[in-house]
Amino acid sequence: MDFRPVFLVIGILLSTLAVMMMVPAVFDLLAGHPDWEVFMVSAGVTLFVGVATALTCRTGGTRLTVRQAFVMTTLSWIVLTVFAALPLHFSELGMSFTDAFFESMSGLTTTGSTVITGLDQAPPGILLWRAILQWLGGIGIIVMAIAILPLLRVGGMQLFRMESSDQSDKALPRAAQIATAIGIIYAALTALWALGYWLAGMNGLEAWAHAMTTIATGGFSTSDASLGHFDSAAVDYLAAAGMIVGALPFLLYLKTLQGNWTSLLSDSQVQWFLTIVILLILAITGWLWLENNVPLEESLQLATVNLISVITGTGYATDDFSMWGGFALPVFFFIMFIGGCAGSTTCGIKIFRFQVLYASARTQVHHLLQPHGVFIPYYNNRPIADEVITSVLSFFFMWFLAFSVLALGLGFLGLDFLTAFSSAATAIANVGPALGPMTGPAATFQGLPDAAKWLLSFGMLLGRLELFTVIVLFTRSFWRG
Amino acid sequence: MDFRPVFLVIGILLSTLAVMMMVPAVFDLLAGHPDWEVFMVSAGVTLFVGVATALTCRTGGTRLTVRQAFVMTTLSWIVLTVFAALPLHFSELGMSFTDAFFESMSGLTTTGSTVITGLDQAPPGILLWRAILQWLGGIGIIVMAIAILPLLRVGGMQLFRMESSDQSDKALPRAAQIATAIGIIYAALTALWALGYWLAGMNGLEAWAHAMTTIATGGFSTSDASLGHFDSAAVDYLAAAGMIVGALPFLLYLKTLQGNWTSLLSDSQVQWFLTIVILLILAITGWLWLENNVPLEESLQLATVNLISVITGTGYATDDFSMWGGFALPVFFFIMFIGGCAGSTTCGIKIFRFQVLYASARTQVHHLLQPHGVFIPYYNNRPIADEVITSVLSFFFMWFLAFSVLALGLGFLGLDFLTAFSSAATAIANVGPALGPMTGPAATFQGLPDAAKWLLSFGMLLGRLELFTVIVLFTRSFWRG
Repeated sequence: MDFRPVFLVIGILLSTLAVMMMVPAVFDLLAGHPDWEVFMVSAGVTLFVGVATALTCRTGGTRLTVRQAFVMTTLSWIVLTVFAALPLHFSELGMSFTDAFFESMSGLTTTGSTVITGLDQAPPGILLWRAILQWLGGIGIIVMAIAILPLLRVGGMQLFRMESSDQSDKALPRAAQIATAIGIIYAALTALWALGYWLAGMNGLEAWAHAMTTIATGGFSTSDASLGHFDSAAVDYLAAAGMIVGALPFLLYLKTLQGNWTSLLSDSQVQWFLTIVILLILAITGWLWLENNVPLEESLQLATVNLISVITGTGYATDDFSMWGGFALPVFFFIMFIGGCAGSTTCGIKIFRFQVLYASARTQVHHLLQPHGVFIPYYNNRPIADEVITSVLSFFFMWFLAFSVLALGLGFLGLDFLTAFSSAATAIANVGPALGPMTGPAATFQGLPDAAKWLLSFGMLLGRLELFTVIVLFTRSFWRG
Repeated sequence: MDFRPVFLVIGILLSTLAVMMMVPAVFDLLAGHPDWEVFMVSAGVTLFVGVATALTCRTGGTRLTVRQAFVMTTLSWIVLTVFAALPLHFSELGMSFTDAFFESMSGLTTTGSTVITGLDQAPPGILLWRAILQWLGGIGIIVMAIAILPLLRVGGMQLFRMESSDQSDKALPRAAQIATAIGIIYAALTALWALGYWLAGMNGLEAWAHAMTTIATGGFSTSDASLGHFDSAAVDYLAAAGMIVGALPFLLYLKTLQGNWTSLLSDSQVQWFLTIVILLILAITGWLWLENNVPLEESLQLATVNLISVITGTGYATDDFSMWGGFALPVFFFIMFIGGCAGSTTCGIKIFRFQVLYASARTQVHHLLQPHGVFIPYYNNRPIADEVITSVLSFFFMWFLAFSVLALGLGFLGLDFLTAFSSAATAIANVGPALGPMTGPAATFQGLPDAAKWLLSFGMLLGRLELFTVIVLFTRSFWRG
């Protein structure tokens, strides 16, 4: 295999990362914090490696083969994680490389699990860097979901291939133009939410950091108490709205701006997602109000922000929802798996896959009753190809296999049942906090053994890249072909 | 819909059940226990209803339509459970109807979860009746898996349609003859194990009761301490071997007896199952020996009997494996889902479905790498039809949906995370004990609220009838068609 086109892309991405590292450097310099040197040196090293790699590999072909695209996707995520971990490792926080890698992977995959305690006292550079990582991860995953995954046909993503290249839609014709337009929308939404947070009472750094991790559905906060630190209904509902915005297909924002005003609400994936979210909020509000005797208004606020945070895989918390009792625990466990819409910044199984699974199960039942009838499942009013159904169903199976193996591995390392199960789920679904006293919303992942942190880092990568993108690299036929 | 053929079958089955009720009546009479009257009266009522129903409905057609077959399968299981619960409810144990129904459902579905404490002091009739229920359930499910489910095409069972009607095999040609032959094999194996248990030191009642619940992979015991009561390596290994025998496809025993000596070991489902069991036993033995410092020989014995008990869904226990620590808990949780081979007495997802899922995932990966290649998944050296793959994948999805809904429901009723999750799993997979202090191997389901017992009873039925058989009855199109 010719690795030059792969490393050309990685070199360009590394150079971008290096430029972004200079932002926290400037902030630490202005705040008079010595970490500014760490960021500058890390930026220098990253830039040097990035530019050198790109220059060395610029002679390769420009069109990627399918195999090269798989290697590029997985490898770029790993290489960027390593370089992004440098400032964390060398900063005054004195994190081990394991911790720095875990935090960096949690950032770039928009997971939001953290191993840092004492965020409220942390230097501004670190806080900003964590937010920037999630913000970069967020736009990275949108572009990947629009431009790369449909071509790689991973987990049914080929469903979305037609939409972007459909002639009749007359959307911006080329992938690069679409990516640029979506990048601008992404940045504009972030600026809008930063303004909102600032008006709601946050200081400038807090507002920008939270805006970046909200739209990216990342979940890193500037306080150990997460959003709960601000104790503000305005902040909570603003965050809730922002996470929903981050969980919808960004391509539809572009279509809306191009004049297709109904494209968002007429999309069946969006309809399903909003319906599920509203029903779950009502259920949890009712539980808190009637069962836990929390006042109605407070119940609604708690349910809205925490539930949206977990279902979108953001990972903010305003309370330890692990402690909400019998019904809440399994609800919060299962919604970790759901995620948002395809083409958004969220992870998880994603709504469209549940739609395909539901349509397929319906067809299955009809088929049981009339063995010789022909029944066709539909998605968004179009028939679903058999190939897509098998892809989605295999994705579902692989998801639970990966979850099971990860939970078993964590159990083997000595974690208790709830911690092992919910940590495995939160990693693969890129949520952030797990459940229970050890890794729940009120705790961090700091106390886990190093091996568990590496396992979880791998789980985050696997989930973020939709499993198959990583798994194919471990097959013999990939390297033989 | 013409319900007469359905009720004709139910009437015949009820009459059979009534005759079986007379066996514990005789035992209680010989033991001088007043419950013999309860069994005789219950038998009389059941026989009257059964014969009356059969006679009333004998005028219907004799060939069942697909719809009638679905109704018959689910309804007969429910009606039999109600009548089988009568002696439990009216016996001197004084069980509530909820408890009696739960115990009866747990028996007929070969689950093995119990709500009775004080088995060691229970009258012989009750002990025998529980064993008989599992034994009847066991042969019922084998016949269903061979004769009915492949025709209903439930969850990929159509894979096994060819084998029994394949002309070239020259097996006994008609379903009724095959069922009779398998019934004889089933009875002979039971008698063999009863003899073995008796030689290993059990008394006559214990030997027969355990032989029936071993071959049926049911798991009801005559002691609160389950097999642990006998504290005997011979009993443990005999039980382990018997559960394996109950977990293999009974049709292959018939083929073996017909002279096809290699049919068992050349079957890929059998190979996979035995390989998985051996690897897991080695892993758990190693864990107990190295991590928990149990002597090697004892580790092997504990691992063998308890692990085979859970993976086959039998439900015996010789120790509280909930207490074996970090690694053991998730292992025992996940193996609940696995089950044995299709056409055996076991429940769970079953080995052949994992084989199909694996073959399909492999094909999927090849297809990702070569989008225009044609790759065909194989099962037992035959290509798997697309329809079978979709069936199996939908089954897998529906299984986790059912499990999730059940776990959520149990959480809603106030059960803790481990109890809710493991009880939902143990019910749908028809295993028996769950995990943890409340419903684990050292406890019973007695302490659960009534609503939880009804939910779990429904879960057992759902799992036993391979989900779709029950679920189709809840669709509009079933009743409209």
